[in-house]
Amino acid sequence: MTRQELIQQIREKRSFLCVGLDTDLDKIPAHLLQTEDPVFEFNKAIIDATKDLCVAYKPNVAFYEALGPKGWESLKKTIDYIPAHCLTIADAKRGDIGNTSTYYAKTFFDYLNCDAVTVAPYMGEDSVTPFQEFEGKWVILLALTSNKGALDFQFTTDASGEELYKKVLKKSSKWGSENNLMYVVGATRAEGIAEVRKIVPHHFFLVPGVGAQGGSLEDVAKYGWNDDCGLLVNASRSVIYASNSADFAIEARKEAQKLQEEMAQILTAKNF
Amino acid sequence: MTRQELIQQIREKRSFLCVGLDTDLDKIPAHLLQTEDPVFEFNKAIIDATKDLCVAYKPNVAFYEALGPKGWESLKKTIDYIPAHCLTIADAKRGDIGNTSTYYAKTFFDYLNCDAVTVAPYMGEDSVTPFQEFEGKWVILLALTSNKGALDFQFTTDASGEELYKKVLKKSSKWGSENNLMYVVGATRAEGIAEVRKIVPHHFFLVPGVGAQGGSLEDVAKYGWNDDCGLLVNASRSVIYASNSADFAIEARKEAQKLQEEMAQILTAKNF
Repeated sequence: MTRQELIQQIREKRSFLCVGLDTDLDKIPAHLLQTEDPVFEFNKAIIDATKDLCVAYKPNVAFYEALGPKGWESLKKTIDYIPAHCLTIADAKRGDIGNTSTYYAKTFFDYLNCDAVTVAPYMGEDSVTPFQEFEGKWVILLALTSNKGALDFQFTTDASGEELYKKVLKKSSKWGSENNLMYVVGATRAEGIAEVRKIVPHHFFLVPGVGAQGGSLEDVAKYGWNDDCGLLVNASRSVIYASNSADFAIEARKEAQKLQEEMAQILTAKNF
Repeated sequence: MTRQELIQQIREKRSFLCVGLDTDLDKIPAHLLQTEDPVFEFNKAIIDATKDLCVAYKPNVAFYEALGPKGWESLKKTIDYIPAHCLTIADAKRGDIGNTSTYYAKTFFDYLNCDAVTVAPYMGEDSVTPFQEFEGKWVILLALTSNKGALDFQFTTDASGEELYKKVLKKSSKWGSENNLMYVVGATRAEGIAEVRKIVPHHFFLVPGVGAQGGSLEDVAKYGWNDDCGLLVNASRSVIYASNSADFAIEARKEAQKLQEEMAQILTAKNF
């Protein structure tokens, strides 16, 4: 999916919601456990219930990997099932050198046919650019994460007072363009979002941390907005685990709709 | 495998070699492609040919993932086949927050039953410690990597002149102990190895970059040695792709043996 197609989807659906598919056998409704592929059955129901309300889905690869080869099958079936009008993001946080990164890229872009994959920046340019050689695909690079541990290294300042996450943004923005590179920017650091937006005015941000982690959608829009919206706000548990009974998909839709309606108001207020 | 058991293996085998299993269908001998599981058949032959010469095996997970569920089956069969006297390292470079890291840890420690997994530090403490809650297992944290991109962020200095990789070492060494934490320290930065050794005198290092990437075993031993050896030196392509004919395992053994003999000399010179 191209940047223009993504922007078009945001306009049409009045939403910049990404639904995180952190699908966990310990949390999905018990009645699904009798099916042949409970993970896929759960995802299918969630996708059917929310696909008109969101513009992206983000399976968290850890949950699928932990199930062995069967988990990878469920992941592939899920990606295949997501309609083409939604961006598919493999939240994998990979990062290795040259040839190895190319193999990770092949996994997510060729084998699974995802649109985007999350990547960690610690190993530098030659760990990121192999992903960017895949035409029409996206790297979503970790910049400022939403967790407590973000404080350990991401805010380390250099001699000129510049934090590491800013250096990551400045350097990496030269490795790709706003057409193949986005950034992970956590909603729990509202002021941080504004700082990131100053450095990369045109890039899209994937924003985790709204809802369960305490970030506010209003703040994200206030600090992160750009002329093309420039935001994909993720919600995982608050949507997909809204209920663990037979009505789980209906309740997931209600939660997604609340977020979509709030987003529609923001888009309208921004004359988008 | 405990630290004491690893040290004992190094003493007995007169080797601190780790063989990297970067098994690539495009590079293994053509005659194996007719077998049901060419990746496992190749690994099995390499392991049979080298298990008395090395103390660890390190499958590079990217190469297995790229083959889909079948790749994960080959990886599991490979880990199961590696004898208990060799440390098994999943080179996966994972790193995500809390619960997600726990799922990655379950994948590598429970499902695959590896002894160790490589982890990236960018997201900080809560992305690393979930792995350390698994008794008897190891985290191998990226500190100073062997690639060109290491220069992008790892050498960023703070106001006091301290490089990021040193900050990673100082902070992370408090999250675990030398009994459940090792570091990736690239052989291509010999002076860097000495700097790392000053900060973490007791930890083991996993050292890539000898051979194909140009690092020298002599320098690694000169700068990285500690009283318990403290080194696992990895060789991947130079060993496993020594030949791509029917004699591949014999040629792999010869290459592994050259390294083992050089290591034996170092161990003897150090009175180990």
